[in-house]
Amino acid sequence: MVVERKDLFVGGIEAGGTKFVCAVGRAPEDVCRPENRTEFPTGDNPGQLISRVIDWFAEKQSREPLSAIGIASFGPVDLEKGSPRYGHITSTPKPGWANTDLVGPIQRGLGNIPVGFDTDVNGAGLGEYFWGNASGLEDFVYITIGTGIGAGGMARGQLLHGLVHPEMGHLRLPRVAGDEFPGVCPYHKDCWEGLCSGPAILKRAGTPAEKIPPDHPAWKYETQYIGYAIANIVCTLSPRRVIIGGSVRKAGQLGEEAFFHAVREHVQTTLNNYVVSPSLLGDGVHRYIVPPLLGDNAGVCGALALGQLECSIAEECREKVQLINY
Amino acid sequence: MVVERKDLFVGGIEAGGTKFVCAVGRAPEDVCRPENRTEFPTGDNPGQLISRVIDWFAEKQSREPLSAIGIASFGPVDLEKGSPRYGHITSTPKPGWANTDLVGPIQRGLGNIPVGFDTDVNGAGLGEYFWGNASGLEDFVYITIGTGIGAGGMARGQLLHGLVHPEMGHLRLPRVAGDEFPGVCPYHKDCWEGLCSGPAILKRAGTPAEKIPPDHPAWKYETQYIGYAIANIVCTLSPRRVIIGGSVRKAGQLGEEAFFHAVREHVQTTLNNYVVSPSLLGDGVHRYIVPPLLGDNAGVCGALALGQLECSIAEECREKVQLINY
Repeated sequence: MVVERKDLFVGGIEAGGTKFVCAVGRAPEDVCRPENRTEFPTGDNPGQLISRVIDWFAEKQSREPLSAIGIASFGPVDLEKGSPRYGHITSTPKPGWANTDLVGPIQRGLGNIPVGFDTDVNGAGLGEYFWGNASGLEDFVYITIGTGIGAGGMARGQLLHGLVHPEMGHLRLPRVAGDEFPGVCPYHKDCWEGLCSGPAILKRAGTPAEKIPPDHPAWKYETQYIGYAIANIVCTLSPRRVIIGGSVRKAGQLGEEAFFHAVREHVQTTLNNYVVSPSLLGDGVHRYIVPPLLGDNAGVCGALALGQLECSIAEECREKVQLINY
Repeated sequence: MVVERKDLFVGGIEAGGTKFVCAVGRAPEDVCRPENRTEFPTGDNPGQLISRVIDWFAEKQSREPLSAIGIASFGPVDLEKGSPRYGHITSTPKPGWANTDLVGPIQRGLGNIPVGFDTDVNGAGLGEYFWGNASGLEDFVYITIGTGIGAGGMARGQLLHGLVHPEMGHLRLPRVAGDEFPGVCPYHKDCWEGLCSGPAILKRAGTPAEKIPPDHPAWKYETQYIGYAIANIVCTLSPRRVIIGGSVRKAGQLGEEAFFHAVREHVQTTLNNYVVSPSLLGDGVHRYIVPPLLGDNAGVCGALALGQLECSIAEECREKVQLINY
């Protein structure tokens, strides 16, 4: 179970493929204040960007000491403590960024404070666990659907890691009858991301998501495939809640409410009452599949949460060592 | 992380839909001895069967005290400690067995010893974690393909639970081009179980798995769909190993080796090098997708392991209480 230290003053970095959002604070309300946050374009020169990030936090640190930094990063990343590449972005096709050490230089640059590091989606999930719609739930999934599709979350109170980390955007799904769209994933063509990411919608409909009319078939396919994917996630992980963040869920002219309504209906139709739980039957599903409570701040709040979690882990280790020495 | 107490003398019940396998012992070698095990047909009268099970263990208990009993059960089951139906088989269509309390009467009938309770597949997975091919791995999946398809295992050292428990047999998969077989799942038709369980093979080929010639297209479909399903599980849970048990993997005239070879190849083709890990690339996959080391005893050994695990949990609680009282 995650020991919560939600009171600590920490830094957070939402390290995205487009921009790095940096913030300091104790809680979601802090990151809303402009003086507590900034953004840098990700660009193709990690060394330069990391220097700018360190400078920004060092200035904050000079006013009030930071207990830790949390980094919620785009991936793939190496999360295996003890691995020589722990804390690195690994095999990304993003120019300049393959094999980039994020944790090392940031930790050294800020006086060797604890650094929490995880995927962007595990980070956002942890933010929702600390302060949002996953509060009190030790098994949940946080999905983001935007430029790509990714998912993270917790199983039995632990963030989802493993051989590497989940890559749920690349789930293979049944094709909806009549849908001939080949998909856009460079690895798999018609995996979930290949069929449902923002770029997939743009390619399918010839227009960005926000401009697609509500009755356009693109929305039917989009919500049906998301329904298949969530049903598969339910069968594999048995989460207690599924949170969908990212830009696509806002669904332009269709609207967020109608989008969630359609997704929930498709999940129920797909599972066909097989998984018996009040959360999945009837109206229960309205509280089961939900948007993030932290909205567009889920990512950067999650980074703060990763920092606070790292402090708890460090503290727990110290306590154990004291116990042994005692 | 699971605290291991592999030295305790315990009872184990592999509660299957066809038979209940009961055993006592400390380790896999014990359950091979005929005097340490027995089997009862499951039938449609749970009360009667449970009495026979209690009598058998009571006789064993009179010779050497059992530290605990573990029950690895067919499902769906209620695993939520604190739920009024904890320890029950819940909504099974199996005649006589819906809403059957397994843990309560067995615990009371054997002097209120600790009872560990989990799904058959989490049990078998725990057995492989204690004594088999999941040894030392805190993230793995154990799949059984036989009369049905189910899967369990661990995420970060904890058995997979959640809203209910995984039901991976009901994953939805892309259809292989040219395959028109409608599937046999009464809930979903062509989910994984509907396409690949023993009864599905029988229906598809018109003959049981063990009699299908090695070059029959049924094997191509079987291994391809299993490949899709495992690829989806890899993307969702990121296990460090995948163990396939159950009868279908023996693959009759095709043979177990050729079956695993084809499945591994399909998993690699499906993932297409997207998940970068030595376990999934090249020959690494031969150690990644494997049969259970405990073979057909994985289930009953897993039940013993569940009993031993329950003792560890009980002990840990006692220690915590002592610490508080101190």
